Amino acid sequence: MADAARDVDSLLERILPRPHGLHERIHKAMRYAVLAGGKRLRPFLVLRSAALFGVDSAYAMRVAAAVEVLHTYSLVHDDLPCMDDDDLRRGRPTTHVAFDEATAVLAGDALLTIAFEILSNHQTHPSADIRCRLVEKLGKAAGHDGMIGGQIIDIEAESRTFGAEETITLQQMKTGALLEFSCGAGPILADAAPEDRDRLYAYARDLGLLFQITDDLLDVLGSAEKTGKSVGKDQDQGKATLVSILGIDGARNKAVMLAERSANTLAFYGDKARELREFPLFLLDRES
Amino acid sequence: MADAARDVDSLLERILPRPHGLHERIHKAMRYAVLAGGKRLRPFLVLRSAALFGVDSAYAMRVAAAVEVLHTYSLVHDDLPCMDDDDLRRGRPTTHVAFDEATAVLAGDALLTIAFEILSNHQTHPSADIRCRLVEKLGKAAGHDGMIGGQIIDIEAESRTFGAEETITLQQMKTGALLEFSCGAGPILADAAPEDRDRLYAYARDLGLLFQITDDLLDVLGSAEKTGKSVGKDQDQGKATLVSILGIDGARNKAVMLAERSANTLAFYGDKARELREFPLFLLDRES
Repeated sequence: MADAARDVDSLLERILPRPHGLHERIHKAMRYAVLAGGKRLRPFLVLRSAALFGVDSAYAMRVAAAVEVLHTYSLVHDDLPCMDDDDLRRGRPTTHVAFDEATAVLAGDALLTIAFEILSNHQTHPSADIRCRLVEKLGKAAGHDGMIGGQIIDIEAESRTFGAEETITLQQMKTGALLEFSCGAGPILADAAPEDRDRLYAYARDLGLLFQITDDLLDVLGSAEKTGKSVGKDQDQGKATLVSILGIDGARNKAVMLAERSANTLAFYGDKARELREFPLFLLDRES
Repeated sequence: MADAARDVDSLLERILPRPHGLHERIHKAMRYAVLAGGKRLRPFLVLRSAALFGVDSAYAMRVAAAVEVLHTYSLVHDDLPCMDDDDLRRGRPTTHVAFDEATAVLAGDALLTIAFEILSNHQTHPSADIRCRLVEKLGKAAGHDGMIGGQIIDIEAESRTFGAEETITLQQMKTGALLEFSCGAGPILADAAPEDRDRLYAYARDLGLLFQITDDLLDVLGSAEKTGKSVGKDQDQGKATLVSILGIDGARNKAVMLAERSANTLAFYGDKARELREFPLFLLDRES
């Protein structure tokens, strides 16, 4: 995972515009937001799912960069005062604190835009048909019925009490959709069979929920020092999470079940999927 | 132009998601922002430039819808309290007033995202290569070195005094880039010759500056009633515009020159380009 993060960081450094012109502030803000370390989980999933199907890593790297840039835009907008109002992200001041609110809105917009530009460029894959499928899939995953829809439900969650089903829907849209895109990128890049695609999506769905439960557990049990972001926010806002619904032990048990099931889903690929199969266990033990 | 607006409105009505699910608020906000009338200048330019090269109007309509949706996102974000802080747009409360700030940020994000989804979908053109070129071009036009870059410079303009050259750069990026994309969509959809593309881009560059000058003139001379938005804002904010730099008569003269030159650029196409050649004159006389 550290290798994947280093490789994608190196590409992000090159792919993001260097500050230039009267508008250099936008480039500085884009780079500030993206080049802040981060675990690069989504790029890891793109790279491993692509490797599983023998995709040229140069192509997979560009898709990984696009997903990470898009993920970063969502963090920048999510941290805004009118949204989660967070001052701390990846252990540093959030973009609107380091720059200003208007710049953060625009930097998020620019990151979202460049994600699609990266995918559509011929360097991402020789087949324009595959590039279009990536653009359309990412649009759906990140859009009104995906990540953004989940963020809207997340806001509703502050004033309504959700049950387990609604909370899972929220999480599947807010976090799961982009993880599904990341895991599904390999089969798309390889133009693989529908069964391969379905296996990766099933894996991703369990992974998404697992990711969210461990995130919620960290929010309750973790420290701001280790996670590099504010903790205890969900509880303060009275938001339902799977941890508040199932209890800490219940959530932990569900996480263990999801980790086992998602690893088993990829048993078909044997040792070729070793890293993807170990990844759920990593999530289970994470401290940040 | 009214025909183009009616046709694109009808497609927008169908292409934008109907409110559904726990997240229906995002669909309502997207529809509120887009389906508010508006002159649909950019769709008109897409449709006429496509017709000039014999492009199937069903394809052109989808590109027109994508551009209008993207343009609307930029208005929604531009109107936010941390940006221009406008309460009135197209004669109605702006999206963050009608809903709330968080919803307006997310609705803008969702509109930007769906614009790329529309372009990449197979219904937009049978050739995936042409769809990818549209996605990439729109990304560049709307991104950090295009529209968003222009918005950043526009913010700088509140605290610095710009001359004519910098003000033109600002306008070319902020408004011009998307008009260039709109006029260039025809040649891309038709896979036309480079000379055709260059003519349409030259036309669009003059048109963009003309559009901005007439917009600035309306801001000084127009009424909120006719324009459907706040007026006198640039002056209040002490922003340099070509009107404040050249004076009202100087700006008007430059506008007349640009209108004539842009119409002449398309003289090559004769009567086939009649509507595009008349359009600059329409801008010159507009009251809203």
